[in-house]
Amino acid sequence: MSALSPVLDRLDKHLDASLGRLFALLSIPSISTDPAYAAECRKAAEWLVGDLKTIGFDASVRDTPGHPMVVAHHPGPRPDSPHVLFYGHYDVQPVDPVELWETAPFQPVVKEIEPGRKVITGRGSSDDKGQLMLFVEACRAFKAEHGQLPCRVTILFEGEEESGSPSLKPFLDANREELKADVALVCDTDMFDRQTPSICASLRGMVGEEITIKAASRDLHSGMYGGPAANPIRVLSKILADVHDEDGKVTVPGFYDGVEETPSQILKAWETLGTNAENFLGPVGLSHPAGEKGRSVLEMTWARPTAEFNGISGGYTGKGFKTVIAAEASAKVSFRLVHKQDPDKIREAFRQFVRDRLPEDCSVEFHPHGGSPAIQLSYDSPFLAKAKNALSQEWPKPAVTVGSGGSIPVVGDFQTYLGMESLLVGFALADDRIHSPNEKYDLNSFHKGQRSWARILDALSR
Amino acid sequence: MSALSPVLDRLDKHLDASLGRLFALLSIPSISTDPAYAAECRKAAEWLVGDLKTIGFDASVRDTPGHPMVVAHHPGPRPDSPHVLFYGHYDVQPVDPVELWETAPFQPVVKEIEPGRKVITGRGSSDDKGQLMLFVEACRAFKAEHGQLPCRVTILFEGEEESGSPSLKPFLDANREELKADVALVCDTDMFDRQTPSICASLRGMVGEEITIKAASRDLHSGMYGGPAANPIRVLSKILADVHDEDGKVTVPGFYDGVEETPSQILKAWETLGTNAENFLGPVGLSHPAGEKGRSVLEMTWARPTAEFNGISGGYTGKGFKTVIAAEASAKVSFRLVHKQDPDKIREAFRQFVRDRLPEDCSVEFHPHGGSPAIQLSYDSPFLAKAKNALSQEWPKPAVTVGSGGSIPVVGDFQTYLGMESLLVGFALADDRIHSPNEKYDLNSFHKGQRSWARILDALSR
Repeated sequence: MSALSPVLDRLDKHLDASLGRLFALLSIPSISTDPAYAAECRKAAEWLVGDLKTIGFDASVRDTPGHPMVVAHHPGPRPDSPHVLFYGHYDVQPVDPVELWETAPFQPVVKEIEPGRKVITGRGSSDDKGQLMLFVEACRAFKAEHGQLPCRVTILFEGEEESGSPSLKPFLDANREELKADVALVCDTDMFDRQTPSICASLRGMVGEEITIKAASRDLHSGMYGGPAANPIRVLSKILADVHDEDGKVTVPGFYDGVEETPSQILKAWETLGTNAENFLGPVGLSHPAGEKGRSVLEMTWARPTAEFNGISGGYTGKGFKTVIAAEASAKVSFRLVHKQDPDKIREAFRQFVRDRLPEDCSVEFHPHGGSPAIQLSYDSPFLAKAKNALSQEWPKPAVTVGSGGSIPVVGDFQTYLGMESLLVGFALADDRIHSPNEKYDLNSFHKGQRSWARILDALSR
Repeated sequence: MSALSPVLDRLDKHLDASLGRLFALLSIPSISTDPAYAAECRKAAEWLVGDLKTIGFDASVRDTPGHPMVVAHHPGPRPDSPHVLFYGHYDVQPVDPVELWETAPFQPVVKEIEPGRKVITGRGSSDDKGQLMLFVEACRAFKAEHGQLPCRVTILFEGEEESGSPSLKPFLDANREELKADVALVCDTDMFDRQTPSICASLRGMVGEEITIKAASRDLHSGMYGGPAANPIRVLSKILADVHDEDGKVTVPGFYDGVEETPSQILKAWETLGTNAENFLGPVGLSHPAGEKGRSVLEMTWARPTAEFNGISGGYTGKGFKTVIAAEASAKVSFRLVHKQDPDKIREAFRQFVRDRLPEDCSVEFHPHGGSPAIQLSYDSPFLAKAKNALSQEWPKPAVTVGSGGSIPVVGDFQTYLGMESLLVGFALADDRIHSPNEKYDLNSFHKGQRSWARILDALSR
C-alpha cells in the first residue's frame, strides 16, 4: 500500500480542484442526438484532450462521420505492465422539458440536499462526465505522486453514446491494434446503494426503432373525412397496443428466442439484496410492477427483455384543439435484450409485426436507432475478483455482483472487435435522475469514486 | 327581378374591390386556439365592424370572456320586412406545419391552378373569411344600388368557432332578443361540386376531449426502469386501440344511443349523387373506407358517428432517440355525433371507458374541448325552398339537399337559444384544404357566391 496511500491522500486534498475541472466539462452542452449541438460535442472532446495532455497522456481528438472520439495513451512502469482500456462518454442527453430544472442544466452547482449530503447538479453530472472524470483524476494523482501510472492505460471517450453510437463499431474495427488491452474498464453504471459498491456482470442489449405510419397525402378535416379516412394515430395505437399481451409479455414472434431462465441460485442471491417493488418503484411515485407477471423487479430489469415506447407524436399537439386527421404518426420504440437475443432478428421481427398490422391505404417507414446484444460477463474473471476486493476496502459495505437493466453497447463491441471483457464499475445512484430534469451526482460518489479507481488501478497492477 | 339585376351587375363590376377587402381580412392571423394570437382576433373583429359601418350597419365589437363577437344590425325596407340573422366566423385554424405552405398563409394571392381556374390562397380563404364576406358584399351592393337592404339583417360573427366556441352559448343566452330573427343564414359549408350548389340539411355534432395519462412522478430511464415501471404511452395506446372494434364501430358503451338508421329512400338519393370511395378518397391519396363496414362513404360522413384521434404526444419526439419512459402522454380525441346522440352523455361514457382501462399506478386528467349535438333540419321549410330556387338560377346545375360530416355547433345553439332554424348555404369545395396547409377558395366561389347571396336575400324578401 505504500504506492497507493499518497495517491489517496492527494485525491482527498485536491477534491476542490477536481470539482473545478468537472464543472468546466459539465458547462459544455454536448447533446449528441441534436445536430444543433455538434460544435459543443467537439468542444467537450477538445477539452478532454487538453486535460489528458496535462497528465502526460498522448491524447488526440479523432474524427468520425459523427461526433469525434478521444483516444489517449499513457505508458506503464514497464512495457509488459498490465494494460487497461478505460471507456466513458462525454455526450449527454437532451434537457427537455427544460422548465422542470431547478438549476440550469449546464451551469453545475454543489448543493446540500439533506444534512451532510451534497450533490453536483447538471446534465451529465452522473451520466457520464462525472463518472469518466473519476478515472482521469485517479490517473492525475498517480502521476503527480509517482511520476507514472501503475498500469499501461489507454483511454477511449466517445461522443455518441446517447444517440446510438453509430461511429463506434467502425472506429473499433479500424483501430483494433491501438485499442486492444488486457481488460476494459467502463464507468457508466450504478452503485447498488449509497453504502454498497457494485460490479455489473450482465447488461441488457437494445434495439431502437422509429416507425412512421402514413395514410392520406395531407392532413384532413376530421368532420369532412372522419369515418372514411384512415387515421394513422388509430393505426399506430392499435399496433403498439398489440406489442404486449395481458400478462405483460411481448408478442412479437420470436422475441423470446435466446432468452434463458435465470438460475434459481442467482434469483435467490438477488432476493437477499432487499429490493422489492415498493422500494424500487416508490421513489418515482409508482408501486405496482407493470412488467411480466410473476417476476421480481430485479429480475425484470436485470434478466428479462422488454419493449418500451419512448416517444409518440402525431396530429395537433399544441394548446387547444384542432379537428384534424393527421397524414402521419410516429413512435420511437426500444427493446431491451437479454442473454442471446439477436438484435437484428428482433428488429426484423418487429418490422414484420408492424407490416402485418398495416391496414389498406397505410404505409410505414422504419428508421433504426442502434442495436446491440446483451452482455453476460464471466463470474470467474481475475480482474473481477481484484476489483471487487479493491472496492470493498473503500466503501462501508462489500462490493456485490449485480446486473443492469440499461444497455452499454460498447461492452459488446469490445468483446466483438477487441476480444476483451469489460469490468463495469460505477458510482451513480438510483436517484441521480439520469436522462431526466435535475440530474445530479453525489459529491461522495465523486470523491470516493476517484479513490476507488485509484485502488482498482493499484490492484490490477499487481 | 328589377331590384336584383343592378345588384348582380354591380357585384360583377366591383369584384376586384371586394377581393381587396377580403385580402385585408385574410392578412390578419386570427388563430383562435392559440392564446398568442388573441390581439389578432380582436383586430379581425374590429376590421369587420369598420367595414360593416361603411355599409350603414349599426355594428360593434362585443367583448366576451374569450375572443369578441361582432354584432351588426341593418333595418329593412319596412319594420315588418323579413328578418334574417347571418352568421360567420372570423377566426381560423393554426397553420402548422407551416413549411408545407406554398404561399405564406397570411399573405393571400390569386393564382391560376389550372387553365381558367383561379383560386384565392391563404388560411381562412375558405373557412370562413372568404365565405362570410360573400354576404357582406351582397349587402354592400344592395345598399349602393338601392340605398337599402331587401330584408332586415342582423349579422353575428364569432371568433372562437375553431376552438370550441366557449363564449357562444352564454352570448346567445344573454342577447336572445337582440339576435332573434325569422331564420338564420350560415355560410360555412361546401358546394356539392363545382357546378352544383347545395343546402345542407344535417350536420354532425361533436364532442372534443383531451386525455392525459400520468404514471411516474418524473421521466425515467427505460433501461433502469423498463419492465417494472408503467409506461403512459403504452397505457394510452391500449385505451385508444380499444375505442374501435374490428368492424370500425365505436365500443364506448352507450355510444350509439340515439343514432337512427338512415331511411332507405334517403340512402338511395345519395347513391344517385355519384360519390363513391374512389372519387371521395382518391384526391387525398386513399382508396379504402376505414369507417364502419357496410356503409357508403356519404353515409359514413353524413349520417354515422365516429371517434377520431386528432393528436397524440408523449415522451421524446425530437430528432434522434432518447431512452426515456415518459411521466405522461396525451391524446386529443373527438367524436362526431348524429341524430339524437347526447354530447354530455358521450363525454361521460368516454371518460368512464378510459377510467375502466386505467392500470394501477396510473391516473388520468380530462380536459373538455367543446360539445354540441347533431342537427337535422326540416325538409319542408319555406326558406329552404326559396333559397334552393335562388341558387338554382345562379349555378349551372340545380341545388341539392345534402348532409355534412362537419360540426357547426352554432346551428344547434340557434335552435336552443333563439328558437330558429338555420339555412346552411356555402360555396367551399372539397379540395379547399380547410384546416390544412395551402387552404384556398375558388375565385368563382367568391364571385358567384356573392351573387348567390344577393339572389337569396332578394328571394327571402318576397
